[in-house]
Amino acid sequence: MPTKIITLTTDFGLKDPYVAEMKAVVLSISPKTKIVDITHCVEKFNIRMGAYTLAAACPYFPKGTIHMAVIDPGVGTKRKAILIQAKNSCFIGPDNGVLALAAKSQGIKHIYRIENPKFMLTRISNTFHGRDIFAPAAAYLANGISPPEFGPEISKIVTPKFAKITKTKTTLTGEIIHVDGFGNIITNLRDKDLELMGTKKTVNLKIKNTRLKLKLCKAYSEVKAQQPLAIIGSHNFLEISVNQGNAAENSQTRVGDKVTLYYL
Amino acid sequence: MPTKIITLTTDFGLKDPYVAEMKAVVLSISPKTKIVDITHCVEKFNIRMGAYTLAAACPYFPKGTIHMAVIDPGVGTKRKAILIQAKNSCFIGPDNGVLALAAKSQGIKHIYRIENPKFMLTRISNTFHGRDIFAPAAAYLANGISPPEFGPEISKIVTPKFAKITKTKTTLTGEIIHVDGFGNIITNLRDKDLELMGTKKTVNLKIKNTRLKLKLCKAYSEVKAQQPLAIIGSHNFLEISVNQGNAAENSQTRVGDKVTLYYL
Amino acid sequence: MPTKIITLTTDFGLKDPYVAEMKAVVLSISPKTKIVDITHCVEKFNIRMGAYTLAAACPYFPKGTIHMAVIDPGVGTKRKAILIQAKNSCFIGPDNGVLALAAKSQGIKHIYRIENPKFMLTRISNTFHGRDIFAPAAAYLANGISPPEFGPEISKIVTPKFAKITKTKTTLTGEIIHVDGFGNIITNLRDKDLELMGTKKTVNLKIKNTRLKLKLCKAYSEVKAQQPLAIIGSHNFLEISVNQGNAAENSQTRVGDKVTLYYL
Repeated sequence: MPTKIITLTTDFGLKDPYVAEMKAVVLSISPKTKIVDITHCVEKFNIRMGAYTLAAACPYFPKGTIHMAVIDPGVGTKRKAILIQAKNSCFIGPDNGVLALAAKSQGIKHIYRIENPKFMLTRISNTFHGRDIFAPAAAYLANGISPPEFGPEISKIVTPKFAKITKTKTTLTGEIIHVDGFGNIITNLRDKDLELMGTKKTVNLKIKNTRLKLKLCKAYSEVKAQQPLAIIGSHNFLEISVNQGNAAENSQTRVGDKVTLYYL
Repeated sequence: MPTKIITLTTDFGLKDPYVAEMKAVVLSISPKTKIVDITHCVEKFNIRMGAYTLAAACPYFPKGTIHMAVIDPGVGTKRKAILIQAKNSCFIGPDNGVLALAAKSQGIKHIYRIENPKFMLTRISNTFHGRDIFAPAAAYLANGISPPEFGPEISKIVTPKFAKITKTKTTLTGEIIHVDGFGNIITNLRDKDLELMGTKKTVNLKIKNTRLKLKLCKAYSEVKAQQPLAIIGSHNFLEISVNQGNAAENSQTRVGDKVTLYYL
Repeated sequence: MPTKIITLTTDFGLKDPYVAEMKAVVLSISPKTKIVDITHCVEKFNIRMGAYTLAAACPYFPKGTIHMAVIDPGVGTKRKAILIQAKNSCFIGPDNGVLALAAKSQGIKHIYRIENPKFMLTRISNTFHGRDIFAPAAAYLANGISPPEFGPEISKIVTPKFAKITKTKTTLTGEIIHVDGFGNIITNLRDKDLELMGTKKTVNLKIKNTRLKLKLCKAYSEVKAQQPLAIIGSHNFLEISVNQGNAAENSQTRVGDKVTLYYL
């Protein structure tokens, strides 16, 4: 069996022992597994941000990767623990939406509840199912335990609400889905949506109540340092950036704000 | 020989080359070792926080793991470099208390000074024994060098002072031992200490001069969002939390503050 | 073939999916490679800081390590993508100086442009060559593809400007090259430069317009807690530190500030 990869996406931060405890559990059960951190710096309890981050990273991992995501404000309640078998990967975590975006983009084949105590730690805490339930499940899955052994198949999962794009004769309206560490403002408008603009090289936008005219660039440095621009980013979304600067810092924009593109 | 795990716990932070230098030294000597970060974000020079974090994480690692901890304000002085052979793991670091809590909880079998220059880098800096002494020691140990080869056996180590719990007919008094990244306030009162409360589901506490009555929950969401609660956390300690919020943020509590439980 | 190591040095930070995307690409192409993070917390766009950090860490890695560095404000422009074959290691990244310091310190043997699309992702974004060009190049190199297959040999690379040290009959003048997470102020004056002081144990310095007389110590704790000192740090540079404190915090010093040593 080739080496398996387990990825981790959490809001646990980097100063506490929690991430290491999950890795220790994985390596105790499945010593040859490679663990790759996606991030542990998701904003606390921000399921949507976790879902976005996992969905962005997961297409680049090899077939057979197991993705575990633990942003879990409902830990200890009746929210389900689930294992999603998708086309290329499996996903393990709480059924609160954090896995949904990534799993759906691959095509979901089966969903199972994780209920079999054989594949959990002996003692389950009230507050840390990442270590006690999800980490062992991921490790046993990496060891070749088949998904149906973890629990009964179910048909539905919780899905985070991302705005749909609405179209009029002159506009497309979407929203800001992420602001990255460089201050790039990432919208859910895609490269193909911009084809409506034809050959125009200026992007006409409204974000909340502010109108912007930005050069549509292929490189940040097509505008001077500290000047704003529009660019198709590395996940094919329209982004608003500042060359060698931070677009988000001096704007009032937030994730969830509406973005209107005047394409005509 | 199966793959060995070496864990790292330091106050080095994540922006400097120091952590990578230690990993490079380990992998140069012992290329097949798996390195797992516990954390590099211990507060600078905070030996007690390092000791707590290592002690929290180490029970979850497989037998045979080598734990290296470098919170080392006394680097370059006569403080000893030590190797502790405990029941399940070995511990390597400065003799200043950072290893003591974790090693004692496993049962210490032998303690050795690390003195043999054969198992150090050729050139020892004044300021970075993590790289020059501890990393090579951990790597050679992973390679199968036996503990007595590193130096003479000694019988005592420095131990950080953690408050003992004191009991009266109506109260237990302990202290706050950690505040985690979620703002959970972790006390040194344990699940079994709370058995004194009988079947009561309200926890009566005094932290410094503030009296609190908190619902003893099994899940954060048993109270409304932003409301405080008491819960037995994932290391079996009594914790004070806020559902989907941060208990520490708006309180004046600090590590070391006294906590009194009125159990009657 | 023994396991290859690929190191990563970036300004991507830890909250976004970008670092994981690069690792995913590496592991998809070269599943057995060990990836070691040097740091992802280089100040955004700070090529010089990236160059310093990589140069500090790389001497400790085993022969054959592949170092990838992506601080890349010119992504999408005509700045070259390069592969440097040096004496012990290979270096991959943008030709903007980030690789130069480390590569030169080892001795550069050959420099190649990375141009062969066979060793890139199929779809190249405008903004993320770390994932689309550099990560696959590093992975194919780890797989044994020979450097000339990546593109034509070139003879020159961009080199960051670090101040030379200037000498008078009584002074040496260098500069501050780094301030680390402990607040240690690291100059480019070396241990051997201090031999000019003879047996003197007090260091006479001017930083910008401030004169300092500091004890030259072999351990931080040779002065009292919170007191300043001079010490030869772990990379053989003269550093200004505060015992159990932070030298940079309360000073106005910055990277690039001049430092004059009055050695007589």
